[in-house]
Amino acid sequence: MKRAIEKNLISINFYNPRDFTTNKHNKVDDYQAGGGAGLLLNAQPLLDTLKKIKNKNKNIYFIFPAPAGKTFIQADAKRLANKEHIVFVNGRYEGIDERVVETYADEVFSIGDYILTGGELASCVMSDAISRNIDGVLGNKESLSEESFENMLIEAPSFTKPAIYENRSIPSEFLKGNHAKIINLKNEMAKLKTKYFRPDLYLHAKCKKEK
Amino acid sequence: MKRAIEKNLISINFYNPRDFTTNKHNKVDDYQAGGGAGLLLNAQPLLDTLKKIKNKNKNIYFIFPAPAGKTFIQADAKRLANKEHIVFVNGRYEGIDERVVETYADEVFSIGDYILTGGELASCVMSDAISRNIDGVLGNKESLSEESFENMLIEAPSFTKPAIYENRSIPSEFLKGNHAKIINLKNEMAKLKTKYFRPDLYLHAKCKKEK
Repeated sequence: MKRAIEKNLISINFYNPRDFTTNKHNKVDDYQAGGGAGLLLNAQPLLDTLKKIKNKNKNIYFIFPAPAGKTFIQADAKRLANKEHIVFVNGRYEGIDERVVETYADEVFSIGDYILTGGELASCVMSDAISRNIDGVLGNKESLSEESFENMLIEAPSFTKPAIYENRSIPSEFLKGNHAKIINLKNEMAKLKTKYFRPDLYLHAKCKKEK
Repeated sequence: MKRAIEKNLISINFYNPRDFTTNKHNKVDDYQAGGGAGLLLNAQPLLDTLKKIKNKNKNIYFIFPAPAGKTFIQADAKRLANKEHIVFVNGRYEGIDERVVETYADEVFSIGDYILTGGELASCVMSDAISRNIDGVLGNKESLSEESFENMLIEAPSFTKPAIYENRSIPSEFLKGNHAKIINLKNEMAKLKTKYFRPDLYLHAKCKKEK
């Protein structure tokens, strides 16, 4: 990502809703209406922040990371790489006043079925997954298509030199230099690994192929 | 997390495999045996780093983030909060020589079905999700049990003051102060939201309740 920023392929900016609060104590959070544990981010500072951003560029696409969102997957990472400008709106504490989400969210995503202390890490994860699909960000284009999930199979194990290190050796086929055989072996390993660890993906890949 | 570190509830250290390489140019990566795009982290520097860590404390638990791992979920975050010491081993480029994984991995986790440029963000996500289940890390204990996934339902939308802001009002029940009714409403909203956005979770929650 650092190199992609240096090459001007992507750029990243931050907005702090605290800079937009009208509260005289600079507060941006409050108790939940109707009770419930924990604090929520107030509607006013966030709505005013997002209004300002939207006024600068109408094409801005707002993504809210939240456990309640749909599950972010590789197809989303590829699709969103075509957006000109994405803004991630990160909640903290118990989350965000729902009116902000209703007003601005183009999509609400969860990066997985676990709880984080805030949206920041989820936004970093999505930024990373999206950015590497932008032309030029990855050095090696081939690298992109051999990856897990790109072809619905988990990648085969990989090895590097030396062939034997502290009595641990790599599969001998990898050393013989017959590339057709190696590709075939890798494909079989990928299938077995997927079948064993992710039967859901395996079935999906099989159905897709049969179609 | 910063506050949890300051309160000595958790501590974080880093090891750089480059400090352990025997390669005279300090190299830690190499081409894949048998061909294939991209570079792999070599076995030697990582094996020697992990050996040193393991010798210091036999109870260390090694987690490797990798797209090929099983999917990390909230139940894992809770379970792993009981571990004394976890080491996350992060791959870069095309990943890690599989012999390192075979030798040291206690668990291999994927945080979701997308590809990242390295394991670091996945490890941050797991650290955050695990740490907030350690006693004392979250200020408010109640907060923990009301969350999405803790009870297999996505959380209901939340609102804070004011009741009306720029013509956007919150559901009137939230203002009437009848707590039994509000809890009931929130529960219904959580069920509807889960049924609509995550039918898989909804069915799972329903089956669990019927048992």
